[in-house]
Amino acid sequence: MKQNKGRVTIPTDTDVVKETLSLAERWGADAVRDCDGTDFPVELKDVGLKVYSTYYTTRKDNEWARKNPDEIQQMYLMTPIYTAAGETLRVRLMEGLYPDMLTPNSRDDIARWWEVIDRSTGEVVPVSDWSYEEETGEVIIRSIPFHDYTVSFLAYIMWDPVHMYNAVVNDWKDVEHQITFDVRQPKTHVYTMERLRKFIEAHPYVNVLRFTTFFHQFTLVFDELAREKYVDWYGYSASVSPYILEQFEKEVGYRFRPEFIIDQGYYNNQYRIPGREYRDFMAFQRREVAKIAKEMVDITHEYGKEAMMFLGDHWIGMEPFMEEFQSIGLDAVVGSVGNGSTLRLISDIEGVKYTEGRLLPYFFPDTFHEGGDPVKEAKINWVTARRAILRKPIDRIGYGGYLKLAMEFPEFVEYVESVCEEFRVLYENIKGTTPYCVKRVAVLNCWGKMRAWGNHMVHHAIYFKKNYSYAGIIEALAGAPFDVSFISFDDILENPQILKDIDVILNIGDADTAQTGGEWWCDPVISAAVKEFVYNGGGIIGVGEPSGHQANGHFIQLSTVFGVEEERDFTLGYDKYNWENHAHFITEDASEKIDFGEAQKHMYALPGTTVLVSENENVHLAVHEFGKGRAVYISGLPYSFENSRLLYRAILWSTGDEASIHRWFSTNYNVEVHAYIKNGKFCVVNNTYEPQTTTVYKGDGSSFPLDLKANEIVWYEI
Amino acid sequence: MKQNKGRVTIPTDTDVVKETLSLAERWGADAVRDCDGTDFPVELKDVGLKVYSTYYTTRKDNEWARKNPDEIQQMYLMTPIYTAAGETLRVRLMEGLYPDMLTPNSRDDIARWWEVIDRSTGEVVPVSDWSYEEETGEVIIRSIPFHDYTVSFLAYIMWDPVHMYNAVVNDWKDVEHQITFDVRQPKTHVYTMERLRKFIEAHPYVNVLRFTTFFHQFTLVFDELAREKYVDWYGYSASVSPYILEQFEKEVGYRFRPEFIIDQGYYNNQYRIPGREYRDFMAFQRREVAKIAKEMVDITHEYGKEAMMFLGDHWIGMEPFMEEFQSIGLDAVVGSVGNGSTLRLISDIEGVKYTEGRLLPYFFPDTFHEGGDPVKEAKINWVTARRAILRKPIDRIGYGGYLKLAMEFPEFVEYVESVCEEFRVLYENIKGTTPYCVKRVAVLNCWGKMRAWGNHMVHHAIYFKKNYSYAGIIEALAGAPFDVSFISFDDILENPQILKDIDVILNIGDADTAQTGGEWWCDPVISAAVKEFVYNGGGIIGVGEPSGHQANGHFIQLSTVFGVEEERDFTLGYDKYNWENHAHFITEDASEKIDFGEAQKHMYALPGTTVLVSENENVHLAVHEFGKGRAVYISGLPYSFENSRLLYRAILWSTGDEASIHRWFSTNYNVEVHAYIKNGKFCVVNNTYEPQTTTVYKGDGSSFPLDLKANEIVWYEI
Repeated sequence: MKQNKGRVTIPTDTDVVKETLSLAERWGADAVRDCDGTDFPVELKDVGLKVYSTYYTTRKDNEWARKNPDEIQQMYLMTPIYTAAGETLRVRLMEGLYPDMLTPNSRDDIARWWEVIDRSTGEVVPVSDWSYEEETGEVIIRSIPFHDYTVSFLAYIMWDPVHMYNAVVNDWKDVEHQITFDVRQPKTHVYTMERLRKFIEAHPYVNVLRFTTFFHQFTLVFDELAREKYVDWYGYSASVSPYILEQFEKEVGYRFRPEFIIDQGYYNNQYRIPGREYRDFMAFQRREVAKIAKEMVDITHEYGKEAMMFLGDHWIGMEPFMEEFQSIGLDAVVGSVGNGSTLRLISDIEGVKYTEGRLLPYFFPDTFHEGGDPVKEAKINWVTARRAILRKPIDRIGYGGYLKLAMEFPEFVEYVESVCEEFRVLYENIKGTTPYCVKRVAVLNCWGKMRAWGNHMVHHAIYFKKNYSYAGIIEALAGAPFDVSFISFDDILENPQILKDIDVILNIGDADTAQTGGEWWCDPVISAAVKEFVYNGGGIIGVGEPSGHQANGHFIQLSTVFGVEEERDFTLGYDKYNWENHAHFITEDASEKIDFGEAQKHMYALPGTTVLVSENENVHLAVHEFGKGRAVYISGLPYSFENSRLLYRAILWSTGDEASIHRWFSTNYNVEVHAYIKNGKFCVVNNTYEPQTTTVYKGDGSSFPLDLKANEIVWYEI
Repeated sequence: MKQNKGRVTIPTDTDVVKETLSLAERWGADAVRDCDGTDFPVELKDVGLKVYSTYYTTRKDNEWARKNPDEIQQMYLMTPIYTAAGETLRVRLMEGLYPDMLTPNSRDDIARWWEVIDRSTGEVVPVSDWSYEEETGEVIIRSIPFHDYTVSFLAYIMWDPVHMYNAVVNDWKDVEHQITFDVRQPKTHVYTMERLRKFIEAHPYVNVLRFTTFFHQFTLVFDELAREKYVDWYGYSASVSPYILEQFEKEVGYRFRPEFIIDQGYYNNQYRIPGREYRDFMAFQRREVAKIAKEMVDITHEYGKEAMMFLGDHWIGMEPFMEEFQSIGLDAVVGSVGNGSTLRLISDIEGVKYTEGRLLPYFFPDTFHEGGDPVKEAKINWVTARRAILRKPIDRIGYGGYLKLAMEFPEFVEYVESVCEEFRVLYENIKGTTPYCVKRVAVLNCWGKMRAWGNHMVHHAIYFKKNYSYAGIIEALAGAPFDVSFISFDDILENPQILKDIDVILNIGDADTAQTGGEWWCDPVISAAVKEFVYNGGGIIGVGEPSGHQANGHFIQLSTVFGVEEERDFTLGYDKYNWENHAHFITEDASEKIDFGEAQKHMYALPGTTVLVSENENVHLAVHEFGKGRAVYISGLPYSFENSRLLYRAILWSTGDEASIHRWFSTNYNVEVHAYIKNGKFCVVNNTYEPQTTTVYKGDGSSFPLDLKANEIVWYEI
């Protein structure tokens, strides 16, 4: 195959100049980058490679931070819940927290910015009933015996969480802890713009400023043993300061309360149904962050450089899927690719010139050590990402870490060479076109487009036992031939017509979470709009506890649509006779035992519902017709090729379009077919690490047999 | 062993006079009875046996019922939830109901007694927006498109549910359907008292009137195929009529609404947290039912007969554990013994001269047929019941059904002979004394003593997958050496001092049910009282989702006491490191793999909690100290001898009294020891159907080895 060049970024360091050049040649890289812990070798500045430089907007300047302690970045924290045994309760704020990372902010008015809450009643404890003892770091509360209390407080971030994470993971010794400063505050704001200019001036050979990132770190806290204690990749808790909060108050016209951020200690994570105040706060932050980010981008452009944003770390408030983002004028976004969903987090961003995916593994000692198998990790990562790239490509790929480590693994170097080549070919074949989409699918939850592809994501692509059975649906969609959108209940309220542009609605997750909607279903405008949509011929797929909320004689609020209910003890008196399993279009490719993941929901089918899979008095899969529409209930669906096929069939069935199954289709579900009508191409791709045999159906229903090598992708003209 | 006589009742019929006499001799029976579907043979009236006669207070007089159709018993029913597709919705009331059993009551003012509810909003649909079409049996609703609706209506019970059940199960052909009439209504009330007098006068040989029962059937409804559709052994839905409800309105001083009974279609079953109106209604019914029952008992006494109540069928409103019951003056209560819990339902009743347990199996063809094994059923029933009898004995045992059938199984006749003998011996040994109790244990829920022993019971002793892991605790307690009480949250509010008389509180069940309390835990008086109790040295055991209710940053409202929380997605961001299992006093007798039943709760342990059993990131068993007290969390505990031991140890540990383990104790958990200090006796009982070897510890800690035969009970003097 012809060796192209470009679309690939590699890391470098001062000790691998020669290797960088040889690898750039081999992998066809056209850009080099530095990383946290590496430096750019000036020898490489004029070798024809585009030069990226990480730029740490909020750290790597402890001198400034120390001189301006009032503008160190702060975060809101809540102590654990303590029960008072008597009329005084002492709460040590830093209990369970890494001491070097945080310092409670008692500089600002604690009576205004801290909050003690009686968690037995939910009421705020009057400021006159508590005080802070600086020497012990304890809050002393005048308590009601056997009531529960928490203290919400502001703390300065004295060791940047990402810097700390990198230091701990890489076992860096004797590094000075980088303090996070808050670019949003007045002195640092002015200073930062100067600092940026100086940086650019001092690094004239840099072509691309890779902002890592803008101003606020996602929530990440460590415990006394330097272990991760709390993480929320979408968390806004570390984006606060009295300075910002006073602005917020002015804008929204109501008084700020720490509880808006603290949220009972749940910190408004994305499973919480976001309240009005938190939505106001996020909107405020988006606007303010965008404003200052634009200033930095403008400076970058003024010097003729490109501005690239890293999607992660201090990215809070940037929200690439919201309108404000496009006003910033960024040239590019780069992000880590953990799986198909995280690939789409990057590639679906609009309004930038290009997107870039940082593939795994990092060239770090945790993988690149004797006995390590970086090729395996790379294969899994590439094949997983490729499904999504074939739907919506990123424009570039790249790697990070210590190049020296990668060089010690020749097989890895060879494999990545093939990846780079394959990426360039597929990019060439599909660029500028929308792949053939079988259906328009909308994921409905409380967040809508703001959390597109990030549903059921807590810490980027990391596995969680509690939600992988739901995240699996998003992952399947990331690489499936559907036009996927993410809509919120608010979107429906604002304009019920949006449902007209949708074929299938998905509602995925546990009851009473933002992912399924909870009490939103008690708004009859919402429930009627969705029922009407289905009744008139729309499809709906519910996974887990869709529309789950106990009210008005239902738990599954759409029980008349889905034809299922959950046994929560209240309906034990009702006899249930509908347990028999039926063969169905949806399960035609499924094996004897379908993997429904963690699902243990005590679901049962109402009369008139067709059960496809029930087991031990739990319905896992059922279908129900409602008017001209069709509903599918699935108890959970971890990501696998087999389950991805099941979802595909469920979507087709729910729209009454079973007849279309044999278009751009592979009989073997380990193999997928993607068509790019405009470019006159289609590809057949083997997602597994073994050879596969299949029959491929083209768009006109004609078919041909095909054998594929492990991981192979084959391109055809239409 | 010496053959005693007495304390045993047997069934008879006109065709088994000789057999009745011979069996009475063999089993030592001193009483005979008729049943539904059998008749008493007058030949037996003077043979020295006490004669019981069933008396059907509310049925077996269709002539009266037909002449007084307005006083036929009524029940409240709710249709399923229907979604309106347009501006008119037609709902057929009898959809899914057995047509011969019920007739909608349109005689009374339907505008007043029926209710159409918009279940999308929870609002009542104005009477002007719906009407009833008698010909089609449909309610026609002016609907809002895609809102959900239900109709609540009154229906006459045209076929008594128990009569129907007996007819269907026994395949009775051509029986006239017995109509249920309502003794509470004026004409029937007067008539009934006369009818009772006539019955007694016509049956002078009868010694005991066995009322089956008083006035209102527990909720029992059948579907179109005559299958059970809905059942609630504690349900009050079939105890209503406009006549009664108008009295209720007058008494409570607020307007009645059908929804008070309908409860969104959940009919206030015992998992629902009972609201004020329903509690008012039950209290009203108790008083009114007691009043008329007393009239009947007084008449019975006037004739020199005994009045016995059957605990079942039309027993609603009698509530044997509430004060009103004792005012009735009943001589005896008889009930069916399904297991240890149902035995205690009978034997714990106070204020009657004697209690009697109807042992299983019934002499019915479902067991007594070729290939049937009635001995096995009898053994299981007896050994299960015996555990509870040894704690709190019933005064008599008895059997029901067709004697002729039993006679065909000589092994059965022989086994029952040994049961009768064993019962008389144990009764003799333990009567009039309180067995030795190791601890005072209180089950805390919304019902308190009114549902004593009936917790987690839907249809008497019938198994339910969803709750057997909780019912197991009650069953274990029924035969364990504890002083068990049942208290409600209301009891604590009224008098927090009641906790002073308790060693261990148990809270058992799913979150947001009446069994665990739901929002009651948001009353700080309740939560503080329980926390104070534990803090000062009390024990607490939580099973399932104890104190579970999402509020104020907890799901487990007593999380600081139990040291566990449930992952409901809201705390996914918190890292959890406490999974390691620890050896403990509580699990010393447990096998490698403990059966926690259905428990799948995503429970995790907070720091400082000692995990005893966790598996696949679910904590099943954990302990936590709180002040001077101790808390035990168990995810579920189906009844078994092994689990009963685990609970025993948990109770001992929770009170800090591990040292007492070797008192009145068997090292082998299949064997139990019960001591009756006052009577100077103790027994060792083998609960299994195999021989057992054990070491028995006496109250002074001294021990001896013992081999027991299958099922054996051995008595000793202290």
